[in-house]
Parts: sequence; structure tokens; C-alpha cells
Amino acid sequence: MDHPEPSTTAQQAATFDGPFMLDSGGSLPSVTVAYRTYGVLNADRGNAILVCHALTGDQYAAEAHPTTGKLGWWSQVVGPGRPVDTDRFFVICANVLGGCMGSTGPRSLSDDDDGGGDDGGSKSGRGGREQWGTRFPAVTIRDMVRAQHLLVERLGLGRLFAVVGGSMGGMQALEWAATYPDQVFACVPIATAPFHSAQNIAFHEVGRQAIFADPDWDGGDYWRAGKIPARGLAVARMAAHITYLSEQALTRKFGRRLQAQDAGRDGSVLFGDMFEVESYLRHQGSTFVHRFDANSYLTITRAMDRFDLAAEHDGDLAAAFRGTRTRFCAVSFDSDWLFPTAQSRNIARALNRAGANVSFVEIATDKGHDAFLLHEPDFHRTLSGFLSGCAEHAGL
Amino acid sequence: MDHPEPSTTAQQAATFDGPFMLDSGGSLPSVTVAYRTYGVLNADRGNAILVCHALTGDQYAAEAHPTTGKLGWWSQVVGPGRPVDTDRFFVICANVLGGCMGSTGPRSLSDDDDGGGDDGGSKSGRGGREQWGTRFPAVTIRDMVRAQHLLVERLGLGRLFAVVGGSMGGMQALEWAATYPDQVFACVPIATAPFHSAQNIAFHEVGRQAIFADPDWDGGDYWRAGKIPARGLAVARMAAHITYLSEQALTRKFGRRLQAQDAGRDGSVLFGDMFEVESYLRHQGSTFVHRFDANSYLTITRAMDRFDLAAEHDGDLAAAFRGTRTRFCAVSFDSDWLFPTAQSRNIARALNRAGANVSFVEIATDKGHDAFLLHEPDFHRTLSGFLSGCAEHAGL
Repeated sequence: MDHPEPSTTAQQAATFDGPFMLDSGGSLPSVTVAYRTYGVLNADRGNAILVCHALTGDQYAAEAHPTTGKLGWWSQVVGPGRPVDTDRFFVICANVLGGCMGSTGPRSLSDDDDGGGDDGGSKSGRGGREQWGTRFPAVTIRDMVRAQHLLVERLGLGRLFAVVGGSMGGMQALEWAATYPDQVFACVPIATAPFHSAQNIAFHEVGRQAIFADPDWDGGDYWRAGKIPARGLAVARMAAHITYLSEQALTRKFGRRLQAQDAGRDGSVLFGDMFEVESYLRHQGSTFVHRFDANSYLTITRAMDRFDLAAEHDGDLAAAFRGTRTRFCAVSFDSDWLFPTAQSRNIARALNRAGANVSFVEIATDKGHDAFLLHEPDFHRTLSGFLSGCAEHAGL
Repeated sequence: MDHPEPSTTAQQAATFDGPFMLDSGGSLPSVTVAYRTYGVLNADRGNAILVCHALTGDQYAAEAHPTTGKLGWWSQVVGPGRPVDTDRFFVICANVLGGCMGSTGPRSLSDDDDGGGDDGGSKSGRGGREQWGTRFPAVTIRDMVRAQHLLVERLGLGRLFAVVGGSMGGMQALEWAATYPDQVFACVPIATAPFHSAQNIAFHEVGRQAIFADPDWDGGDYWRAGKIPARGLAVARMAAHITYLSEQALTRKFGRRLQAQDAGRDGSVLFGDMFEVESYLRHQGSTFVHRFDANSYLTITRAMDRFDLAAEHDGDLAAAFRGTRTRFCAVSFDSDWLFPTAQSRNIARALNRAGANVSFVEIATDKGHDAFLLHEPDFHRTLSGFLSGCAEHAGL
């Protein structure tokens, strides 16, 4: 077995020869999982926490992002002295299957011909290797978790002390606890749901249609010409971004303040001054397209839409957790309307029906869904306290 | 004065020579207001109700739409024996300034040269008449109301018995009461707000960016080539449509049900079966583009964004209504998250501070913002009862 040094900060990736079977019935010839680790693994290998990222996250949870240079997406939560304390825990964060930061996804080269050379901009004929693009098969949250499980085994970890994640990361945390109950001591699903709601599917569909509508998407083959469907992907991001905030947060941050209009090449100059909230959204959209692949966005939104943990267990969410010894802490935020508290309550109720050890905490905040990524002391204290309590029970 | 027969059902439009001054400081050389009427005007001309339409509505409130053939958008509310009873009241509904169903808007021919002939697909040179397109000036809700006021005077109505409207129609109703207090006996603002919120501006901006991103928008000049930015406008409509419903309504109507996938020319076939809610949204988007002009959509969304009645009165919403004798009934729907009850409560509080006669009713429903357009018996009883009570006070 290959056990890489956990404390290294070099690019880390593990490749697994396939076939890797998918829930869709298809398979991938091999799977690469790109990941990062923080902290040091104990001698008994018992202090590992898997952190699962959300739709547009990646493995760079607690360090500068290599593309944007910005702080890691969970720098407030993962680090020395943070709630997920890297002085105490060995933290793993892996790019999901279907992602675009090194794990196998639509931007990966397909293995049509393993013996063939990497001839870069090859034609679509047999014998060359080129991006999967839209030929990349549909994946599920469970497929993502199975790929992470391969990584966890490769790292020589018989059991994870905890699996923690928000939003789609919370879906993965739940799926981990349901699929590998004996390998998860504690599970923290945050701002998530046991299934994706009709409203959330609808918002994802708007984003997908915005991408499809961009002629630069080119039926998914934009990468052949070195283009990106920047405008469509930006619109998708803008629509999604609104759902990550709350009405109160938008009002507090921007209200109805106007700002001077930049000269622009498009319709943005039609109306004179624009509202600050418009400028903010446009910025969110235009920066996103440089760090995220459109086909990955399509693949991952679809995986979220398809997520329905009860459906995987004959319609009974409690059955997913029957007999579990995992300790759970479900966390929601009261202003989160994308993954409202009612959904976390559904999770907690199912866990109670399954006789599981479960805490449920609703955090008061006006920051909406994004609260799990932001400075939210009550949430951080909750997470820190739960992990400390579990560590004591685990004898860490 | 020209007093057209109120009971005629022929196409009705009134043109007013300008200049028509706009809040933006600009002006229009003339203004046409297209309208429809239902019911019969009393001998004393005292039974007129102005119905104001929402963003994508039009003057066809209570009859088949000439383009789609569908029932009028308020057929459940306006008609014989309906809450706005055309056996009793004379109902006027006018297409808003900036609209695309006959009133002056971006699709109207501009009057660069009044003496010039209508030479259809003329070049943009001086001397020809062509569509305003993006040269159409920004308009406000108050501009829309001023245009309606011209129509009301033209019809020989010294006073309106009532002004009634939902969503943007409610903004107009409030503006009528604030601008022409002595000409409005009763005012019913429904599912509306005294200003457009940051979140609502944000959703509008997503829609506008989707239109701008469509190459067929062509900088607003799509009409020159006989094209429409169908994909961008459809995405705009889809995003907006989600905000018109509630999460509960989407869950009740669609849940997570799948349907067989149509073969399609675009990315829609990437993922196998699709969710019913996706199919529904796509239908909403694709049908909308055939009945609505993209430049009108831009103009009217901007008018809504700019609406802030308090700002028109030195920041004091109550000042907008000081001394009014108009009777108000503010109506909200508890599952409406686009124009939440708190906004109607703000209206009611300001009216109370102004010493106005005001009722405030929140209707329990799971239908979201669109409830004002749907079968909602409690709402209809409320509206009917309020109008009957006012009619008694008015001696009708």
C-alpha cells in the first residue's frame, strides 16, 4: 500500500485502476482523486477528518487557492486552533469525482486508448486521448463518496474520526455514514438536506440552461477551440449566488445603494448608474468562470439534483442509518432558504427513528446558506464542541 | 374631449401629443396608451376601476390574449360576478408605458421624423422611423402612472372609484394614490412593496444578464434582423418564474418526479430522464419569448428596480400619503417570498402613520407570489368585500 507522507504540502493525487463502477450503470476506466491534507496523522491513524466540499469548492480548504490566490474556502473552520483543529486532527479534503481541480471529471483526458500518447489537441478519432467533455458519465453523490473511500483506504485509514461538510459536502457526509457506517465515528452534515428539493433543482436548471444558451458552450465541446462559455456560466453563477445569501444579508450589504456605472461593452450601460448589488453579482459571475469548468458545473449540479438518500433505501430515510453507531450533529442556519432548517430537522428525525446518537443545532444568523463558510462564532463553537466531545469518546 | 364608447371590445388605444416628460429628465415626443375596458360606465362616471398589470402582464386582463389565445391574466378576478365585478364596475386595464402590447415602448416606432413615412425596415439614418429599441429612455413606475392618468382624463373620468393591482401593479396602485390622491377613492395594493429589495434587484439583474449574454440580443438591435434573443429571454423568464412560486408549491406540483426526456438539439439530453419541474420551467421560458419583447423586459424590470416610494418623498413613506382620504386595503400572501408580508406591513404602517383608512390582510396559501393570479378564494372574498364596502361609502 502506498501511504504518502500526510504532512507534505505538495500536489497530492491518487489514481485507482478501474473499472470504477458508477450508480448510472456505466463505469470509468480509472479514477484519480486529487486531495490535500492538513495536520499530522497520529501513530494509531485515528485522528483523520474528511472534509467534503460543496458544489464549487475543491480540495484547497485551508490554504491559498492555486488559481485565484484567495484563502481556502474553509480557512475559518479548518486550521490550527480552528474548529477543525489541524493541531489535533489530520484533515483530508478531496476534489469530488466530476470536479475540475485534478480529480477525474469532464476536463480529464479520457482513456479511450491507454497506450496512446498524449497528443494534446487531437481529433476525436480513436487512438487519441482527449477531454471527456460531455461524454463524461453522470455521477452521483454516492459515486463521489466511493471515490473518496478508495482514497481513504489508500491512505491506510481503517476508520475516519469524522466526516464533515456543508451543502453538497453535507450530502456526502450523510452518504458516508450511510454507506460506510463502521468507518465513520462522527458525522457533521451542515446546511444540507437528505434530498434535493424541486426548487433547488429548478435553480440548477436555470443555471444549466444559461450555459446551454451560450454559443461558446458549443454542445459541450468548447474546450476543443480553447473557449469557455463565460457568459452563460457567469449567469448560472449569479443566479446560484443569490440563493446562497439571504434577503436580509443582501439588504444589509447593499440595500438600494447605487454606484457609478463603468463603461462596458454590453447592455450594462443602458441604464445609467447601477445598484451595488448588481455590480457585486456581476463580479461573482465573471471571476467564477476562470476557476470552474462548465461541464463540471453541469455534472455536479446534476449529481446534487439526483441526491435522494431515502430513495436509496426503499423510501425510508431512517433505514439508511439503522443500527449505526456513528455520532451525528446536524447543523442548520435559520436564514438559509436553499437548505432550510426543516431539511436538517428531517435528517435529525430520521436519525432519531434509527436510534442514532444525534444532536441538532439551528444557528441564528442573517447570512443565509453561505453562513457555513463565513465568520459565524456560534456555528464554530458548536462544531468545535461536538468534535471535542466525540474525540473524548473516541479516546483521542 | 374624446370619450370612446366604454363597452366596445375593439382594439383601444389613445395617443397623447407630447412632449411627455419623464422622471429621468428625458421626454417622449408622444405617448400611446393601449387599453381594454370591461363593463359599463355609470351615468355619473363614478364606477371606474383601474386595474394595473404586473411585469409581464398587459391590458388583456379579462379576455383571451390575442397572441397566446389564453384566458386573460386576471380572469379569475375581473369579470361578471367576479371580485372586480364587471356587472357593477367599469374596468380599465392599460398596457404600461415601456410595454410591448401597443403602449409606447422600445418596440414602438420612434418619432425622429414625424413627417416621414413608415418605411418598415429602414436604415438608422435620419428621416426614417424605426423601433426605439435600446434608445427608448428609462421610465419609472410614476411615468407609467402619469401615462395612465392621461388616459383616465381622456376617458372623462374625474375620479377613479378604485385602483387595484398586484406585484408591479401594486406599485402603480400606490403611486396613483400618492400622486393623484383626490382622484382615487380606494386603492388595493396586492403582493407588492413600497420599494424593490436588493434581492429582487439581484434576480432582475440575472435575467438582464441572461438577455445581454444572448448573441441574438445583438446589443438590443435584434429587431433589425427580425431575430429575438429567445434563449436569453427564456433563461430570464425561468429564473423569474421560480421566484413567483413557493418551495411548497413546487414540491406539491412536481416533487422529484421524473419524466421521459424528449430528444433535443441541446444539452437537455445529456442527463437521461429529467425532472418534471425542469420540463415545466423550460416550457415557461420557451412560450414566454413569443409574447414578450426583450427590450421591454429590460425597460420594465429597471422601472421596478428603481421604484422607491419613500425616496420620492424625502425618505418618509408616510409623507407619500399624508392627508389622503383614499381607502386602502393592502393584501399579502404568507408564502410569497418575492414580495413578503413584511413589505405589505410596511405599507400598512406608513398609511397608519399618515392617518389613512387602511386594512391589511395576509392570505394563507402555499402558492407564493403568483397567488394573486390564481384561484384563491380567501383573497377573492377579501377583495370583493373591500370593494363592496367602499362602493357603499361612495354611494355606488
